[in-house]
Amino acid sequence: MRIKLVISYDGTNYCGWQKQKNGVSIQEVLEKAVENATGESVLATASGRTDAGVHASGQVVHFDTNATIPAEKFYKALNPFLPSDVKVLSSSLVDGGFNARKSAKEKTYEYSFYFAEVDLPLKDRYAVRLEETPDFDKMQKALELFVGEHDFKAFSRPGSSVKTTVRRIFSIRLDKKEKGFSISITGGGFLYNMVRIISGAILDVGYNKITLLDIERALETGKRELLGKTLPAKGLTLVKVEY
Amino acid sequence: MRIKLVISYDGTNYCGWQKQKNGVSIQEVLEKAVENATGESVLATASGRTDAGVHASGQVVHFDTNATIPAEKFYKALNPFLPSDVKVLSSSLVDGGFNARKSAKEKTYEYSFYFAEVDLPLKDRYAVRLEETPDFDKMQKALELFVGEHDFKAFSRPGSSVKTTVRRIFSIRLDKKEKGFSISITGGGFLYNMVRIISGAILDVGYNKITLLDIERALETGKRELLGKTLPAKGLTLVKVEY
Repeated sequence: MRIKLVISYDGTNYCGWQKQKNGVSIQEVLEKAVENATGESVLATASGRTDAGVHASGQVVHFDTNATIPAEKFYKALNPFLPSDVKVLSSSLVDGGFNARKSAKEKTYEYSFYFAEVDLPLKDRYAVRLEETPDFDKMQKALELFVGEHDFKAFSRPGSSVKTTVRRIFSIRLDKKEKGFSISITGGGFLYNMVRIISGAILDVGYNKITLLDIERALETGKRELLGKTLPAKGLTLVKVEY
Repeated sequence: MRIKLVISYDGTNYCGWQKQKNGVSIQEVLEKAVENATGESVLATASGRTDAGVHASGQVVHFDTNATIPAEKFYKALNPFLPSDVKVLSSSLVDGGFNARKSAKEKTYEYSFYFAEVDLPLKDRYAVRLEETPDFDKMQKALELFVGEHDFKAFSRPGSSVKTTVRRIFSIRLDKKEKGFSISITGGGFLYNMVRIISGAILDVGYNKITLLDIERALETGKRELLGKTLPAKGLTLVKVEY
C-alpha cells in the first residue's frame, strides 16, 4: 500500500530534505523511522526538496509499504522514532498513482521577517531580522508583478539543470504581524532558491534598493544580476502542498 | 562602573542562568563574552535564576567593569562573542546602588501553550502542547485567586530554603492566541517553580482536574499535593523585569 504523510520539521540542524553524504537529511531520519516502525527499508519521496536550513509545517511525502499498520494510524507509529524537530502530523492511504512530487498541484511557502536592533534568540530561528521598516505600499505593488506565468530564470540559482524556468504563481500575500511581517507565495512549482530570491527582491523594492522596473526587467531578460542577494534559508517555511 | 544589561536567551541548551559544574549556563556564556570583549573577568548578577530550559526575552543582569567601552555601546561589544541563542538587547550605566536581583521591583513571566494532536517542531521549542481546549471561563476565575499577597508554599518546589514563602502577585492575564494561549504573571518575586506550578493549576481547573476550592485550599494550607505536576520548563519565558 502507498502511504501519504504530512510532516513538519525544524530544518536548522539538517542538510535539507534529500539524503546526502555529508550531513543528516530529513529523508534519512524519516526513512529510518519507517524502518524502525515496520522493519522495512523504504524510499520516501517528498513534494520537493527543501534546502539545508529550510523549515516545513506541511511537507507531503509518500512511500510504499507492506506493513499491517492501518494507514490512518501510521503517523502514531512513526513519531516515537523521530527526533523532536521532525514529526508526522497525519497519514492516509493513497492509490498507487499518487506521487508526492509529480501529483503536487500547488505549493505554498512563507518567508518571515522580524524587526529588531539585534538578533533575538527567540525569533531568529525561524525568521530574518530587519532593522528598518520597508515601504509596504511599494512592496504590495512588487508582489503583483509575480502573479501569473513568467520565466523565473532571474529568480533562481544559476546553473541548476531544469527543462524550463517558466513557472506559474497563483498568489502572493504580504501579512503584517506584531513586530514583523511575512510573504506567502503559492505556485504550481518553484525553481531552486526561487522563493528566497523573490522575497528578497520584494524586500529590496521596499527599501528602494531596486525598482519595480528592475523586477519587470529581470522577469523579461532572465538576468539574475539585476537582483540582490538570496535571502537566508532560516526564514523560509514550506507551509502547504495541495493535490 | 556598573553596567545593566537586558538580555534574551533560548534556554533549550542551557542548565539555567546559574553557573554549574555539569552543563553550560547562561551566566558562564555571558561572563566569557565580557572577558573576551574587555579582558576582565567579571561576576554577572541576574534578576533571578532561571531554571534549565527556561527562556528569557527580557532578563536583566548587572556587573562591574573598568573597561572604557561606553555603557550604551556595551551590548554591541558583547554580541559578537555570544552564541546565537544568547544576545544582549541593550546596555546602560547604573549607579553602584543598583543590583539586578535586589533592586528588582516587578517581574513578568509568560507560560505558553499550543493546541495540536502531535508535537509540532516549529512550536514545541517555546510552548507546551495540549490536545483539548480547556474551559477559559473557569481558568479566568482561577487567575483571580492568585492576585495579591499569599503564602505560595504549595506553589513551590518543596525543600527550597527561603525565609518566607509569602509573595505578592500584581496581575495575571490569559491571552488567547491563534491555536494556543498564554498565561502572563507579574509579581514582586517568585519561588522556585512557582510560575510553572501556578500555570499548571490554572490549566487543571480548565480541564476540571481540580476545582477553584482546591486552589484556595492550597493557598491556605500550603499543601503541594493538592495540585498536579509542575509544567515543563520549555513553555516558560522571563519577559520583563522592572526596577
